[in-house]
Amino acid sequence: MNKELAEKLIGKCIELALNECEEGQYPLGAMVVDENGEIITSLCSNLNAGYDVSAHPEMVAIRQACEIKKDRYLKGCYLVTTLEPCPMCTSVAIWAKMKGIIFGASQNDAIEYSNTHPESKLSWRQITVPASYIIEHGTPRLELYDNVREEECKKLLDEEYVKMKKKRKTREI
Amino acid sequence: MNKELAEKLIGKCIELALNECEEGQYPLGAMVVDENGEIITSLCSNLNAGYDVSAHPEMVAIRQACEIKKDRYLKGCYLVTTLEPCPMCTSVAIWAKMKGIIFGASQNDAIEYSNTHPESKLSWRQITVPASYIIEHGTPRLELYDNVREEECKKLLDEEYVKMKKKRKTREI
Repeated sequence: MNKELAEKLIGKCIELALNECEEGQYPLGAMVVDENGEIITSLCSNLNAGYDVSAHPEMVAIRQACEIKKDRYLKGCYLVTTLEPCPMCTSVAIWAKMKGIIFGASQNDAIEYSNTHPESKLSWRQITVPASYIIEHGTPRLELYDNVREEECKKLLDEEYVKMKKKRKTREI
Repeated sequence: MNKELAEKLIGKCIELALNECEEGQYPLGAMVVDENGEIITSLCSNLNAGYDVSAHPEMVAIRQACEIKKDRYLKGCYLVTTLEPCPMCTSVAIWAKMKGIIFGASQNDAIEYSNTHPESKLSWRQITVPASYIIEHGTPRLELYDNVREEECKKLLDEEYVKMKKKRKTREI
């Protein structure tokens, strides 16, 4: 995975978060791609729409990719996501024997945003164990590309920014 | 949660693992119970039957309980499982704002079993981050009841033991 491709893939995840997420959902985008960067699954967060507490976009992208490939293992594949995956989602990538994880904003960005924006409707609750820590304790040892286009991904934490971008897009159409 | 009830609940999980698991599946049992110990969901591992890599029995028990209660949060509920839940399953219990986790055999028991039984068909692969570590870094802070009936739960790691118990049961019928 080269830096250029990782940045391009994160760009696609940012578009998912900005263009696909319904209002009231976490503006997050996630994909599973193969080793050439070909997209297998891509989606935005829809967590708040249903009852499945495990339905983080990373988890759903991985489950859907397994179903598409008819395989519990996604060897050679990468998980790409706008926000550092939580221990649940990092772990499922390890269970799926994926090749690596590429993320944008960090867990600390989300924590900082929450602390400085108590008015935010989205809680951005975190389990404060970094993806790197989970990866270091797992087999296979996944590659990690962290803080890719971090500043752009950080902006997605801000509902007002996302709303503004959506409105601008609507006007352009 | 008192010790007696925790032991009784683990007993039910052991029965699930021994009586319900198909051959070739990990002999693991998991349940979600309410604060009085009433069972909401109970099941054994069926991971090897499908393509959903996240389908650990704990994960499935929690997802099913959310669906039954029509709620992403399982407040007041406990996750009960014969083997220490992995970081994925511990995390989903935290995301579901459960009250606590009760487990039998530890992750170290599984690692030790793997190391001393290279012939085992089941890999018992672990992400070596204990449930307690994930819980300490999560909100809400779940109660943890560890190593409940550990010796009995440890025996479930051994396929031959499980087969023998199954055969004995068949003869009894």
